[in-house]
Amino acid sequence: MQEKSPIENVRIVLVNTSHPGNIGAAARVMKNMGLTQLYLVEPKFFPHPDAVSMAAGANDILDNAVIVDTLEQALSGCQLVLGTTARSRKLHHQIVEPHEAAIKCSELSSDYQLAIVFGRERTGLTNAETDQCEILINIPTNPDFSSLNVASAVQILSYELKLAYRHLDGANTHQPKQVHKPIESASHDEIENYFIHLQQTIEKIGFLNTQHSPQIMPKLKSLYHRCNLEKSEVNILRGILTAVDKNSCDN
Amino acid sequence: MQEKSPIENVRIVLVNTSHPGNIGAAARVMKNMGLTQLYLVEPKFFPHPDAVSMAAGANDILDNAVIVDTLEQALSGCQLVLGTTARSRKLHHQIVEPHEAAIKCSELSSDYQLAIVFGRERTGLTNAETDQCEILINIPTNPDFSSLNVASAVQILSYELKLAYRHLDGANTHQPKQVHKPIESASHDEIENYFIHLQQTIEKIGFLNTQHSPQIMPKLKSLYHRCNLEKSEVNILRGILTAVDKNSCDN
Repeated sequence: MQEKSPIENVRIVLVNTSHPGNIGAAARVMKNMGLTQLYLVEPKFFPHPDAVSMAAGANDILDNAVIVDTLEQALSGCQLVLGTTARSRKLHHQIVEPHEAAIKCSELSSDYQLAIVFGRERTGLTNAETDQCEILINIPTNPDFSSLNVASAVQILSYELKLAYRHLDGANTHQPKQVHKPIESASHDEIENYFIHLQQTIEKIGFLNTQHSPQIMPKLKSLYHRCNLEKSEVNILRGILTAVDKNSCDN
Repeated sequence: MQEKSPIENVRIVLVNTSHPGNIGAAARVMKNMGLTQLYLVEPKFFPHPDAVSMAAGANDILDNAVIVDTLEQALSGCQLVLGTTARSRKLHHQIVEPHEAAIKCSELSSDYQLAIVFGRERTGLTNAETDQCEILINIPTNPDFSSLNVASAVQILSYELKLAYRHLDGANTHQPKQVHKPIESASHDEIENYFIHLQQTIEKIGFLNTQHSPQIMPKLKSLYHRCNLEKSEVNILRGILTAVDKNSCDN
């Protein structure tokens, strides 16, 4: 059996969701980001074919979803509860943005169970529900059009959790992930020799007259320095110059 | 009339979208985050009631959507084009994550038009389409379930853009913020025309035979895309090519 990743300690709790399609879309984005625990508090319609359709293959998340009658039940066993709110000011609560919330979660002990709670499509969480949260999360939005789809809100939090937890992932796998093939950078000498060749060639073809255009070579050098040339690229660029030299009428 | 916010210079370009509901969901998240310009390249069904339903009030984004036949048309006038890809390794392109992509966009001059391109639901962007992008964006996901809904991908980029651009909001009401000395970047079209000229010239002098060396042009494009060419640099590079052309023995 695969070892559990620390991000799987985070429960996504959806309260009283009206549209089963939103539950499915939330399951999909959870799975995209490596989350696995979905809790549904009194969903209006579930299970439902719209949920399966929107989950687009994240059926395991739906099949394992825990359906409960009250928010208290969904939060049972959690050491930290965060709630999402569209209101940016709320008395008596610490309010953070998704990035900070995700960092906080990832810094907690890997024994902890955490929950992030998302409210109803139209009305969000009630005051009684936010009172059960230690921290509130506000997602920055356009003040003139701030109502986020609930699956979009789950998306943003899941994405921030993925970023915050990924440095922990290598810790519990065996082989570190090799993202990029090592690319061999050109050496200082290779680049300098390319510049000498470039200058000779463009002088020969009559493009460069350093007296009349003293800025051309510095500008070209700055351009090529900026792009961190690879060895193979210098080879191509010098190959072009050699072809120009051979093809030049002065030969 | 309300002054335009710098984030509105970013076009969201959806290529060949199959499900109109995804177009509507993308419009909603764009509006949530303050984006306004939606371009649709050959949408399968649009306009469509599913788009309106999923837009949940972002009708202005749908009504103003620009529908075009080709990606080229959607990118016309853009100084920087970024494409999204599910593949984390791709030759010849600079690949960044959404956060870095959004920061890059926000640091550019407020005169620039930018585009972020999103591919088809099942198959993403073709190689020919990613070749039109200077930078590719890879959204980190669970490697076992990496296929993001296209509206979710738009969501994540829009969210990162909102975060990256918000320090500019308000700054442009009276005094435009001058971050850098204005350097005029080459436009997308100027760079594409340079590539055409480069290919013609190196074919003529016998360096390039695309059948024998299909990787040369992609590698050269990747090199020049990476260095964010300025207008004046493209002029120098094209001047060199013109001198090579004139000097070639075939003339």
